Amino acid sequence: MTQEPRTTEHLSRFVSQARWDDIPAEVRHDARRALVNYFAAALGGCKDAAVDIACTALRPFQPGDAATLIGRGMRADILHGARLNAMSANALDFDDTHFPTIIHPSAPVAAALFALAEARPVSGRDLLLAFVLGVETACRLGRAVSPVHYERGWHITATCGVFGAAAATCKALGLDGTSTLWALGHASATASGLVHNIGTMSKNIGIGNAASNGLMSGLLAAGGFSGPDEPLDGPHGYLQVSSAHPPASDAIAGALGATWELSANTYKPYPCGIVLNPVVEACLALTREGGLAAGQVEQVTVTGHPLLLQRADRPFVTTGREAQVSAQHAVAAALARGAAGIDEFSDAAVRDPVLVEIAGKVRMEEDAGYDIGSVTVRVSTRDGSERSRHIEHAYGGLERPLSDADLERKFFTLHRHGGSTCRPEPLLSALWDLDNRDDAGAIVRMASGSD
Amino acid sequence: MTQEPRTTEHLSRFVSQARWDDIPAEVRHDARRALVNYFAAALGGCKDAAVDIACTALRPFQPGDAATLIGRGMRADILHGARLNAMSANALDFDDTHFPTIIHPSAPVAAALFALAEARPVSGRDLLLAFVLGVETACRLGRAVSPVHYERGWHITATCGVFGAAAATCKALGLDGTSTLWALGHASATASGLVHNIGTMSKNIGIGNAASNGLMSGLLAAGGFSGPDEPLDGPHGYLQVSSAHPPASDAIAGALGATWELSANTYKPYPCGIVLNPVVEACLALTREGGLAAGQVEQVTVTGHPLLLQRADRPFVTTGREAQVSAQHAVAAALARGAAGIDEFSDAAVRDPVLVEIAGKVRMEEDAGYDIGSVTVRVSTRDGSERSRHIEHAYGGLERPLSDADLERKFFTLHRHGGSTCRPEPLLSALWDLDNRDDAGAIVRMASGSD
Repeated sequence: MTQEPRTTEHLSRFVSQARWDDIPAEVRHDARRALVNYFAAALGGCKDAAVDIACTALRPFQPGDAATLIGRGMRADILHGARLNAMSANALDFDDTHFPTIIHPSAPVAAALFALAEARPVSGRDLLLAFVLGVETACRLGRAVSPVHYERGWHITATCGVFGAAAATCKALGLDGTSTLWALGHASATASGLVHNIGTMSKNIGIGNAASNGLMSGLLAAGGFSGPDEPLDGPHGYLQVSSAHPPASDAIAGALGATWELSANTYKPYPCGIVLNPVVEACLALTREGGLAAGQVEQVTVTGHPLLLQRADRPFVTTGREAQVSAQHAVAAALARGAAGIDEFSDAAVRDPVLVEIAGKVRMEEDAGYDIGSVTVRVSTRDGSERSRHIEHAYGGLERPLSDADLERKFFTLHRHGGSTCRPEPLLSALWDLDNRDDAGAIVRMASGSD
Repeated sequence: MTQEPRTTEHLSRFVSQARWDDIPAEVRHDARRALVNYFAAALGGCKDAAVDIACTALRPFQPGDAATLIGRGMRADILHGARLNAMSANALDFDDTHFPTIIHPSAPVAAALFALAEARPVSGRDLLLAFVLGVETACRLGRAVSPVHYERGWHITATCGVFGAAAATCKALGLDGTSTLWALGHASATASGLVHNIGTMSKNIGIGNAASNGLMSGLLAAGGFSGPDEPLDGPHGYLQVSSAHPPASDAIAGALGATWELSANTYKPYPCGIVLNPVVEACLALTREGGLAAGQVEQVTVTGHPLLLQRADRPFVTTGREAQVSAQHAVAAALARGAAGIDEFSDAAVRDPVLVEIAGKVRMEEDAGYDIGSVTVRVSTRDGSERSRHIEHAYGGLERPLSDADLERKFFTLHRHGGSTCRPEPLLSALWDLDNRDDAGAIVRMASGSD
């Protein structure tokens, strides 16, 4: 039918033909870091209320037990396992972040792959390779549809994630370019997730579906279930439908194998929206200077990139989930408690009268001259003094990435928070050593816990 | 959060509060007719290649057996059962059609409900009531997003279907307005399906997902999984994201309970795109006049509504699926064979050289003065003669609906085509008598077959 362009065909062929040897050493390490962060986030979020409810509500209707639910005792069939693990990994908003698109790529892609690895043998190396290619697919698609896509209201992690999970599944199954193309077509028929649902449990449904539908798309394509010729490009392709005309097809098919999206992946130091990184850092720095009593705060002015206001100007929050995307809450928590961990973005924290009071004194100011990773926070106090802190490159961004040691600390902290009975040390060692392990399924089983 | 408007809240409250006594007798009968057509289509499509592949490919990964797969021996868990039955019911393009939106509402809604009824007791009457409200939800949403939604490339049966399946599931579960609102929020995070996939197996993925995700959305909401306040209306709600500004919210929340969308539902006499109804009828009438040998055709001119060309101007087709949405193929089949049944829209039929030759002689002409249900077909022959046939209201449209007897004939024909071992007569009787049956799950089990 459609004769030109052949964007999806190029991408599919690349995915099907890429080999482990093609992946640069630093990208391989980026992949391992992303998986350490994925397991950390999933272990931390596995007992979140949304995950608890989803596990309990769906359990009577899916009797399978092939897949481990990370951090839990319950098991699931692999399609539900992919869904529920992706939800766990996204519940605390402690994901990785592909900076150019603000996609959180690992939850859908890794959840699909590890679920598959429990049903069919996949070596650690093959899983890593498939993971690299899945992230590549999701993030290239994200570049092609940005910024119109998110502005229009599509939750880009979910919508692009399903393509990543599908591509990764195809690679792990060893499918050829045509089957991979079909799977991307199936993914296009399931891509969804709304910005509107952010701040509610509903957000996790989009992420869970991305993992599960991506896995299903690959399994169907492997069975010969065929799809359209060019699902991404062309007059009714996904790029056009969900973004703008003309679609930025080059972002998908250009320089394949020469650049790697995982190189632009980052890891959050705080469990909240990525745009809040510099805000939290500035406030923590101010409290560390000493002498700033929370009760003394008169006004706080936060000056930053327009996107900071667009995504996180939420003066009134009623749940921990909303707090994750509220600059006002983040400022209050960091200033009042000198901390910005999971406890600071909980339902309890939003009811803390001290935080509520400070949050009410925060004024947001947008300045297009700021980079998304930079911010200035000014605090004036009742005694008339004022102090301010400017962050040029926030910790956790591309310029100042989390070190491996910091990632490990995050892993242990989140493991503790989630309360899983699994032993964290051997799991962490296995993840760093994944490319030398024969059975990726065995690795995720190390993350089993109890309910 | 969002304070106004309250479109989804109005709809959700209506769904949760509606009672069987509120449904007019003729709408109840429309619901029974829709379910007869649903089972007919599913029995006919249950062995379609796409359904076969999906059943086989997914079977190893979902060990459940609570749900009947219509016409088959294999069973599935209810979430996969809903998916696979919706795919069967849509595979042959022999669905019902809500005329104002061209949504095929029954496949996602009925598949979700009957799957649920096999896991929890639902009476026939409660299922019918939930079905009416599910169709109402899907089609009102369809009215609100039309025509921009489909033009932009969204396959409206799939995208709106998930909301219908979710609302129906909530009703059958007896959920209150708030939980129903949440379920519609979850549905909004999963709504997808592209026009681009029509004509390929991939199309059925969107329909199957609509049933399965709608059912899941209801089950999650029942468990307390919460969602956003106003998923449809508002700046990032589904109406706005997938359609135009300002959204036609009145189409959703206006005159609830006073008008019923099932009254605008129709049943296809031929297994192809609904816009082809008048085209096929005109051609069949021409052949019945006699004396028109297929080999004598010089040119065929088809004049109709612009939408006919937009959706079905496909001169070259290579599969039966593409043939279902090709006016050229439909003309050729009806003229050459004097028939337009499933055999005329098969992979074999598109390879028939007689049909290929006639299809190459079809010229499409658009005329905005035509109604979507009307068409003129002019045939000129080698001997210089010309004959034409005008159809003002196609059979199977709102003005000339299929009679109950015709629906029954369609049911038996499709049962025969699908080759299911189930007995069609008792199933048909049970469907006409559904509101007096205690256990809707028992009805769908009457449709079990063998693989």
